[in-house]
Amino acid sequence: MNKSNDTHTQSSTTLPTVSTHIYPRGGLDVLSREEVARLRDASADGGMHELLRRCALAVLTSGSASDDPRAAQELYPDFDIQVRQQDRGVRIELCNAPAMAFVDGQIIAGVAELLFAVVRDLAYTAIDLNIGTCLETSASITDAVFRLLRNARVLHPGDPNLVVCWGGHSIGREEYEYTKHVGYQLGLRGMDICTGCGPGAMKGPMKGATIAHAKQRHRRSRYIGITEPGIIAAESPNPIVNHLVIMPDIEKRLEAFVRMAHGIIVFPGGVGTAEEILYLLGILLREENEGLHFPLILTGPTGAAPYFEQIDRFIRLTLGEAAAARYEIIVADPELVAKRMTAGIRKVKEQRIAQQDSFFFNWKLHVPLPFQQPFVPSHEAMAALDLHHGRKPYELAADLRRAFSGIVAGNVKEEGMRRIEAHGPFEIHGDADIMQALDGLLQAFVQQRRMKIAGDYRPCYRVVR
Amino acid sequence: MNKSNDTHTQSSTTLPTVSTHIYPRGGLDVLSREEVARLRDASADGGMHELLRRCALAVLTSGSASDDPRAAQELYPDFDIQVRQQDRGVRIELCNAPAMAFVDGQIIAGVAELLFAVVRDLAYTAIDLNIGTCLETSASITDAVFRLLRNARVLHPGDPNLVVCWGGHSIGREEYEYTKHVGYQLGLRGMDICTGCGPGAMKGPMKGATIAHAKQRHRRSRYIGITEPGIIAAESPNPIVNHLVIMPDIEKRLEAFVRMAHGIIVFPGGVGTAEEILYLLGILLREENEGLHFPLILTGPTGAAPYFEQIDRFIRLTLGEAAAARYEIIVADPELVAKRMTAGIRKVKEQRIAQQDSFFFNWKLHVPLPFQQPFVPSHEAMAALDLHHGRKPYELAADLRRAFSGIVAGNVKEEGMRRIEAHGPFEIHGDADIMQALDGLLQAFVQQRRMKIAGDYRPCYRVVR
Amino acid sequence: MNKSNDTHTQSSTTLPTVSTHIYPRGGLDVLSREEVARLRDASADGGMHELLRRCALAVLTSGSASDDPRAAQELYPDFDIQVRQQDRGVRIELCNAPAMAFVDGQIIAGVAELLFAVVRDLAYTAIDLNIGTCLETSASITDAVFRLLRNARVLHPGDPNLVVCWGGHSIGREEYEYTKHVGYQLGLRGMDICTGCGPGAMKGPMKGATIAHAKQRHRRSRYIGITEPGIIAAESPNPIVNHLVIMPDIEKRLEAFVRMAHGIIVFPGGVGTAEEILYLLGILLREENEGLHFPLILTGPTGAAPYFEQIDRFIRLTLGEAAAARYEIIVADPELVAKRMTAGIRKVKEQRIAQQDSFFFNWKLHVPLPFQQPFVPSHEAMAALDLHHGRKPYELAADLRRAFSGIVAGNVKEEGMRRIEAHGPFEIHGDADIMQALDGLLQAFVQQRRMKIAGDYRPCYRVVR
Amino acid sequence: MNKSNDTHTQSSTTLPTVSTHIYPRGGLDVLSREEVARLRDASADGGMHELLRRCALAVLTSGSASDDPRAAQELYPDFDIQVRQQDRGVRIELCNAPAMAFVDGQIIAGVAELLFAVVRDLAYTAIDLNIGTCLETSASITDAVFRLLRNARVLHPGDPNLVVCWGGHSIGREEYEYTKHVGYQLGLRGMDICTGCGPGAMKGPMKGATIAHAKQRHRRSRYIGITEPGIIAAESPNPIVNHLVIMPDIEKRLEAFVRMAHGIIVFPGGVGTAEEILYLLGILLREENEGLHFPLILTGPTGAAPYFEQIDRFIRLTLGEAAAARYEIIVADPELVAKRMTAGIRKVKEQRIAQQDSFFFNWKLHVPLPFQQPFVPSHEAMAALDLHHGRKPYELAADLRRAFSGIVAGNVKEEGMRRIEAHGPFEIHGDADIMQALDGLLQAFVQQRRMKIAGDYRPCYRVVR
Repeated sequence: MNKSNDTHTQSSTTLPTVSTHIYPRGGLDVLSREEVARLRDASADGGMHELLRRCALAVLTSGSASDDPRAAQELYPDFDIQVRQQDRGVRIELCNAPAMAFVDGQIIAGVAELLFAVVRDLAYTAIDLNIGTCLETSASITDAVFRLLRNARVLHPGDPNLVVCWGGHSIGREEYEYTKHVGYQLGLRGMDICTGCGPGAMKGPMKGATIAHAKQRHRRSRYIGITEPGIIAAESPNPIVNHLVIMPDIEKRLEAFVRMAHGIIVFPGGVGTAEEILYLLGILLREENEGLHFPLILTGPTGAAPYFEQIDRFIRLTLGEAAAARYEIIVADPELVAKRMTAGIRKVKEQRIAQQDSFFFNWKLHVPLPFQQPFVPSHEAMAALDLHHGRKPYELAADLRRAFSGIVAGNVKEEGMRRIEAHGPFEIHGDADIMQALDGLLQAFVQQRRMKIAGDYRPCYRVVR
Repeated sequence: MNKSNDTHTQSSTTLPTVSTHIYPRGGLDVLSREEVARLRDASADGGMHELLRRCALAVLTSGSASDDPRAAQELYPDFDIQVRQQDRGVRIELCNAPAMAFVDGQIIAGVAELLFAVVRDLAYTAIDLNIGTCLETSASITDAVFRLLRNARVLHPGDPNLVVCWGGHSIGREEYEYTKHVGYQLGLRGMDICTGCGPGAMKGPMKGATIAHAKQRHRRSRYIGITEPGIIAAESPNPIVNHLVIMPDIEKRLEAFVRMAHGIIVFPGGVGTAEEILYLLGILLREENEGLHFPLILTGPTGAAPYFEQIDRFIRLTLGEAAAARYEIIVADPELVAKRMTAGIRKVKEQRIAQQDSFFFNWKLHVPLPFQQPFVPSHEAMAALDLHHGRKPYELAADLRRAFSGIVAGNVKEEGMRRIEAHGPFEIHGDADIMQALDGLLQAFVQQRRMKIAGDYRPCYRVVR
Repeated sequence: MNKSNDTHTQSSTTLPTVSTHIYPRGGLDVLSREEVARLRDASADGGMHELLRRCALAVLTSGSASDDPRAAQELYPDFDIQVRQQDRGVRIELCNAPAMAFVDGQIIAGVAELLFAVVRDLAYTAIDLNIGTCLETSASITDAVFRLLRNARVLHPGDPNLVVCWGGHSIGREEYEYTKHVGYQLGLRGMDICTGCGPGAMKGPMKGATIAHAKQRHRRSRYIGITEPGIIAAESPNPIVNHLVIMPDIEKRLEAFVRMAHGIIVFPGGVGTAEEILYLLGILLREENEGLHFPLILTGPTGAAPYFEQIDRFIRLTLGEAAAARYEIIVADPELVAKRMTAGIRKVKEQRIAQQDSFFFNWKLHVPLPFQQPFVPSHEAMAALDLHHGRKPYELAADLRRAFSGIVAGNVKEEGMRRIEAHGPFEIHGDADIMQALDGLLQAFVQQRRMKIAGDYRPCYRVVR
Repeated sequence: MNKSNDTHTQSSTTLPTVSTHIYPRGGLDVLSREEVARLRDASADGGMHELLRRCALAVLTSGSASDDPRAAQELYPDFDIQVRQQDRGVRIELCNAPAMAFVDGQIIAGVAELLFAVVRDLAYTAIDLNIGTCLETSASITDAVFRLLRNARVLHPGDPNLVVCWGGHSIGREEYEYTKHVGYQLGLRGMDICTGCGPGAMKGPMKGATIAHAKQRHRRSRYIGITEPGIIAAESPNPIVNHLVIMPDIEKRLEAFVRMAHGIIVFPGGVGTAEEILYLLGILLREENEGLHFPLILTGPTGAAPYFEQIDRFIRLTLGEAAAARYEIIVADPELVAKRMTAGIRKVKEQRIAQQDSFFFNWKLHVPLPFQQPFVPSHEAMAALDLHHGRKPYELAADLRRAFSGIVAGNVKEEGMRRIEAHGPFEIHGDADIMQALDGLLQAFVQQRRMKIAGDYRPCYRVVR
């Protein structure tokens, strides 16, 4: 896997660290001189180097008790990572790395793998993708997503069995245990798991599947974590992840999820999870995707029933019955969830065969450009939203998702709150019932502690009819 | 793995069951007509069939919450298992088997493996070993142990890395968590685990190692459970076990442990664990075994320190410093335990190479016949014990183990208690200080709830000088 | 594979030799102390040791130009082999072994494998089978055949694809090239090859299949050679054989062929080949085997057409049309041979599935005891033959095979010729036309140089009506 | 490997053909939509399509008796190949393809692999390399060579064991048998073989190694054929090749050889072989390559001794003793060749480790730009050659190679002969002894029938001093 010598273990004032170097495998071992040089140069570049340092630290502290990203940065202030060039390939130097990633001076094999994945993906993004300059069409964005996933070796032509699980990273114990039970039932049926790779609902299904896979002697299990630079530090990969992919931004990460998934399960989560549901429904409501099988199950323990009921009501009100027909809500029945998902994926397989689609990438799914481009919630952008009945459902879904995103920003994100302070509440144009439902949903999230608010909740928007 | 059709799922008054048949793999798939016939006949025979039924049920309920063996028997009164003959091999028929061993009508692959192991070992013991008739010499018993282990395919010529873990099956949470931590540290260092395959200290180390093995990308992990017919029902294999061996009796099980182990770790346990320590020390104190490396570590969390201190004092008093030199006590330091064990096993490997011994079976270890023969604690047998200073340590160890075994029987085992009622307390010949120490040890076990006593503890023996 | 050190290369007056020791794998690496001791003792025993020495030498000179067995014995008069005991298993010592089996002092891996196979099979026969004492029933003989094959690890539960090829070991170049073409066409269709493991028609099909398997990227190809102690020296395993089995005698070797075969191809050969055809037809004509699919193709190049025509006429005359219906003669069309065999084996597979038979051993084939017992051609035995029309075909086939065997012995085998000299020609009771046909067949073999005769051919029998 | 249905087998007037489609594996199975489209477009483009068609036909007739490239084109005039697009990847359609590449309507797995290699390399060259536009520096050319080889998956980080064999494609039987013997001895020592992938000295070593690899149970053998579009049709890959690489031109093919080789063996050959020797010596004589281990052995049977003696004399005369010190000539001793090569490669490994070079690509070897650029032998270019003593040996080697190349062209290549007819003989500036030696060498080639001349040999140059 790797070789590490000349290792120096030191104990700083805060925590013990290790300095060593390792030689990567898995695609980084057969590089050309020029690639190594570009990799070295790219990683030495200021922005890229800081990104690499931050992601590497997240991986090296994978599985630590704390979920606070800043903690890692503060606990290991002297940590650094350098990519060096040799004719035999790259050599990665770690300075003052967390000792928890090592055993008797040897880096843990799985941690090393994730570390190589970080270098691989950041380099690929920086060197090969040329993000920003040429990704202007929908097709070229999809192509970039595909190539990054292929370069990460997570596209492989086996039978469809990849279940993407969405849900909150800070959920209660009852909900966490439930995600493990669902993962266990999926694993018993030979399903592999893909999540956002953090804790909570992103870890539980993998943990449950691990035990089931062991029982079923399921070899070559895949626990795929898809993340992006903005959140990897906050949602450090859990130790079960054995394939890590770092997409360049949130939108490409979402596209990676929906194109790789053979089915999606949504557990209770915060506002982000609600946004993800709207993202997916918006896409599925496109005419082009009408006949496409896409198993989608919303599920949680008994205590989560109200959460899903409210979301269900909101979707029916805004997007209509056609949207509600796209998902199934199952409460407190992990086995049923797994059975339905398995049956759904069987249909996906049949359809892919009938249409000669690939098993490993859902090319047929139409993802319109607006769903691929980032949304920046300025006052202008918010005022331009159009939340009225009568619009095409997928357009309304897109705008609802944006509204959601903006309101969340206005309430809890630093930059959004500053905007509200400076310019007053957002003005949103929409029908009264839609706006009320949206408002109700947000208040429920606050009550259920799914959205962290300092002080009382005060709406950051007002409705304009 | 197996094929199962014509499956009928039924729900009895108590619990759901499944009736089906499966075709085994793993050594049972290439049988001769005669072997299949003998297997069928043997398993149809009254005693063997009941044994098979009981062990099979233990495996089929593996991982269930309850540890009470009778529970399984009572919950699935209609369960039955039959071995049928076909030219292509055997066919195993399950009637009213616990539904928990199945997923959508298909038996769980790992459960099927353990089930085949049960059939394999019981059949091998009944058909090939001819236990009882010809196992009269020490060498022939060792040979039988070897052949059974080889037939179970657990002897394989890789690098020495098998750590046997002993300890109680009903231990407190602090102690259980500790066994997991030790297993984790062992797993990080590439060690495989072998235990008695039940819950508690037999499960914890495997569970910890599983996570570490996943992190280290350690493939082909071995979680070997060695049991015997008398206890498998009470200590149903935990779901992590991926190699199950059923030895014919307690003594052969103990010999299997010490010949397969490259090192042994003893966690806190009941009287049984104390007996195991005396068994091993008795063997190691033999002159023939003097130069033999055999890493032996006694370890537990802080709360278990007094337990090991008392055992240590007892051993020093009775068997002397030479015995104490054979083990190391480590309190509350899982990493140190794993480091010492790894270093010890490195020495074992060097010695095996130097002496051209096999890596997978410790032929050089001398196990005298008295340690291979069962002890039945009658009044005569107990009176014949000779617990005086001045005896050879290994002889004293053997008699101490027997004394222990008898006293336990007199206090808690049905047959032993009846003997005491009928004939009065055992008379044991021994030096006063030895007897007092032994008594003190037993009382401590009672206080620490490591020995289950109904009512007050009343010694079932008296000392004769 | 093996380790060899302390190697001494010497050059005797005749040929260079190597003395070294090797540690076996493949079933001989996990032995008990007792087994090693028995193996050592058995191989030290006079008869067994000489047998082992002779077979080992045949393997060590595998692929040499000369086919003369005595050559090897004379060229390496000082060769010896010893089996030594160690706790880690056996150690095989080679003294003055042919240097051609070594590369830079290291034994060639494939040669070592075949050598271990020799030790394995001779030991198994001597130690486990107890041949002679208890093999008195048909079932027990079949059981012994099965267990020896299983111990040799050639029974494996894959899809039926094993084609047994029979034919002469000294055939002309045109015929040899033809066997390669047939092997090539079989190999292109995924068939594995099993032969008697010598040169000529036993080597050609394997050689052809090797090239086809390489082209088809057919992994884990099996080139099984089944031999017996009496002929291994004369028909030293060709270098392509990767599974060697040494059956105890000719009859068990024949039974191994017909029970492992999914189909049989007969190339031109000497009298022995004709006997083999009669052996197989005799079995297939049994009522019990009536419905059993068993593809049997007689084939050769254009020049071999007369050979098969004559055999065909002889069979129709003696055994009738039912016998002729059991085989197909194909002249000069390797592709057709392979297509028919592939189609035939497809039917065999279907039948095995329908009847729940094993794929790897044809238990359903009824082989009567007379076909399992050796025939010693004394004057009494020959006079007892009953070659008249009207007998049941399978009985007539059995006696014809014996007549054949006896006549051959009377003409070319030392002991048979002595008998004829001492007691005059055999008296055989049979119908005139049968005897004439038999006589004609033999004369044709002489003319075609398929039977080596010193001087003119003079019948060694006379017909009694 | 591939799936082929809707297969139509037709028999044209000339030869039987098959029309079908196949789905590729091995790097072509996970393509993006855009890549598939570019591949389809590129292969539909006139020049590329004709190239693809020609190379594909060469592969589909691999192993046919005839070595005449035009034969294939004439025998299968209706053959065509199309690359189609599907979401699951590419689909390759074959029309009127030679039936010899199919078995029962299914394409032979190995042929399919080579076919995919053709598509892969032509597409990679056309799409990714942008040959011509940006390959102006030595480093960028080396980089292109590296990337093409990596894309072909022939760079893998195992122990150094790759022996490149050079030599003529039309050699006599004695010489051909000799190349097999050398390949066999190399194979016995675990060496893999890389050649120009045609017949003769390019096939013999692979064939010999195949047998040795089988004997040594050497798995994952590599028989790498490196060719280029101009010669693949003339030197159709022999059927043993299991890795085929099509480099864009002769110079990149030569660089691929010398950078992948851990050692090179030169068998007798035509003028081309002499040129290759000069190419390699020219490079090795560069100061930068002085300390670099590079085993180079010239070898042939006894009959080839004069050939090598003459070459040796020529080299000593022109390039000096330093050049001669770079190679060893071994006559008629395959085992010695293999031993020396094995020992040499052991030193290569040590050096690579010491200098932290890669095992799979000889980055340290300095290949100057003149050796990477094609030479077009015009009268001007020939007149510019400077064949005088006193020049730096590597410069003289480069010019000698060019002189050679030009003289050959003037004598036997259509375009060169036309030039000579039009403008008279080349004028070459050089010292008399050098020119005489060169002349003598060429005449010897003619006598030994290593250079095909129509009519008498008449020098196409004259010396100018």
